[in-house]
Amino acid sequence: MNVRSILWQHDEAALDLLDQRLLPAQEQWMRLTRYEAVVEAIKTMAVRGAPAIGISAAYGMALAARSGADRNTAHAALAGSRPTAVNLVWALERLQKLPWEYEAILAEAQAIEREDLEMNLAIGRNGAALITPGARILTICNTGAIATAGHGTALGIIRSAFAKDPSISVFACETRPRLQGLKLTAWELGKEGIPFRMIVDSAAAYLLQLRRVDYVITGADRITANGDTANKIGTYALAVAARHHGIPFYVAAPRSTFDPSLASGDLIEVEERDAREITEVDGHRIAPAECPVWNPAFDITPGELITAIIDEKGIYRAPYRFQSDTA
Amino acid sequence: MNVRSILWQHDEAALDLLDQRLLPAQEQWMRLTRYEAVVEAIKTMAVRGAPAIGISAAYGMALAARSGADRNTAHAALAGSRPTAVNLVWALERLQKLPWEYEAILAEAQAIEREDLEMNLAIGRNGAALITPGARILTICNTGAIATAGHGTALGIIRSAFAKDPSISVFACETRPRLQGLKLTAWELGKEGIPFRMIVDSAAAYLLQLRRVDYVITGADRITANGDTANKIGTYALAVAARHHGIPFYVAAPRSTFDPSLASGDLIEVEERDAREITEVDGHRIAPAECPVWNPAFDITPGELITAIIDEKGIYRAPYRFQSDTA
Repeated sequence: MNVRSILWQHDEAALDLLDQRLLPAQEQWMRLTRYEAVVEAIKTMAVRGAPAIGISAAYGMALAARSGADRNTAHAALAGSRPTAVNLVWALERLQKLPWEYEAILAEAQAIEREDLEMNLAIGRNGAALITPGARILTICNTGAIATAGHGTALGIIRSAFAKDPSISVFACETRPRLQGLKLTAWELGKEGIPFRMIVDSAAAYLLQLRRVDYVITGADRITANGDTANKIGTYALAVAARHHGIPFYVAAPRSTFDPSLASGDLIEVEERDAREITEVDGHRIAPAECPVWNPAFDITPGELITAIIDEKGIYRAPYRFQSDTA
Repeated sequence: MNVRSILWQHDEAALDLLDQRLLPAQEQWMRLTRYEAVVEAIKTMAVRGAPAIGISAAYGMALAARSGADRNTAHAALAGSRPTAVNLVWALERLQKLPWEYEAILAEAQAIEREDLEMNLAIGRNGAALITPGARILTICNTGAIATAGHGTALGIIRSAFAKDPSISVFACETRPRLQGLKLTAWELGKEGIPFRMIVDSAAAYLLQLRRVDYVITGADRITANGDTANKIGTYALAVAARHHGIPFYVAAPRSTFDPSLASGDLIEVEERDAREITEVDGHRIAPAECPVWNPAFDITPGELITAIIDEKGIYRAPYRFQSDTA
């Protein structure tokens, strides 16, 4: 099963996106032929996952070039569609070096997509080498094929390990507040036929106490010079529980996630998101009318709690001292 | 504000119960005049919380005696309404010593209710003595007035501390899968005017890392001789994170929760509950159609992770060696 969320339709000059807002209830594709529609798809989170956003934006620029749109206008609109996405800015910067011609921009967008898939396959290969036969792996959020060009990062390691050894199995955290685990990872694992069970996030520590997990593997949003890792809220709780039980805790991410310009995680600004992510589920109110919340989008896991960091080049172990030239 | 979920209406010989299934959206009371209706209210979880269930069952027996129902039939129906509730069995046993007369049974039901309230006030007093000025307290689930005759256990300590010091504040875990924190504790704290913020359960460890919590206080379902504590799933994750950060972790429960006949927590059988608690929210499907889950109702926190256990008699500290005569 080759799960994808982005399909460039060459003959139609159209970008097909799997509408991730409707998963898992509906698998509905959107066909986009204008860059403005790509801006809208990113803004409304029809496409999500930092690599998937970057790739979609690059195809958006190809659509803009094809239609003869003003380059600066299109660039600004796509760059502003999701202000905090690092991959988005990086992908658009790559296109800036090229002439404003449809064929050239499209070729680069396709290269960005192809390279992302290759990177994920390499991360999967590197990570799978660490996984023992019959391993039971715990993960969080969605770091899968639909968040990337394909295969995924942490979930890519699980895919690669399963391809070698169909006796592995997965526990996946539902990942409140937005439930990317329950809605997206469960859907992907089901498609792949990888044996899994979902848990509420707070059950993870007890699962580790019962020795029912051999490895914890998560993705990353940003990794600083000392290995401190910003990732989905709940990652740090898993790292603390894994250390308490002596269970390996791995982080998987492409090297574009590394930011050695920051010495440590306390320099990362953590975004607080809308209260309704907690107080509502799919538009249905579950909290009292007056309900203040604290809703950080991610947390910071100190490098010293991370057993190893895996990228497309290899495996790094604590203490981490990443530099611009080494990673 | 005197939040209650059980009101005996003496002149009408009726039991009024706050329908907890409808909170926080609606505050709707049910009036019960037949014991069969009490059985139904317990079965359908209109009333929840072990002490509240025990008290309601005792009033149910008073209604049965008044209507001239068969004693054994009524006893069996109420005892079977929620098989795992220890307080339910205990409350019904107390009534067995009395003659089958309405006034006698009613007086004992009222005594059970009054004693539960007094016990909670004593737990609150004992626990509040541990709380420093301006403290920020983290709790989980609902251990409040509506789960008991009034005041609550862990939430009772927060109430007592707030009465002495209005500068304290609370963080409360939403408590997946059933969201008793977000639905019930948020509602109670709002009624009391106690400053609070809700968090997703997985954010608790990060909150502790940021040093924004001074104490963690939880309730208990059962406490064994060595202090091992069964409580709502997620409690153990909080205990591990509290130990990692050197933050006091307190358990509050009446002594009827202590079970010194069990040497340790590994002798407690942990109930696994319906998958739909995770895959649906208020009847709305949030997971793929095929979605296996692991859904333990509670977890076991080893006594050595618990800084102190607080009951109506006093405060106990590790290492715990509870015996039938001391607790």
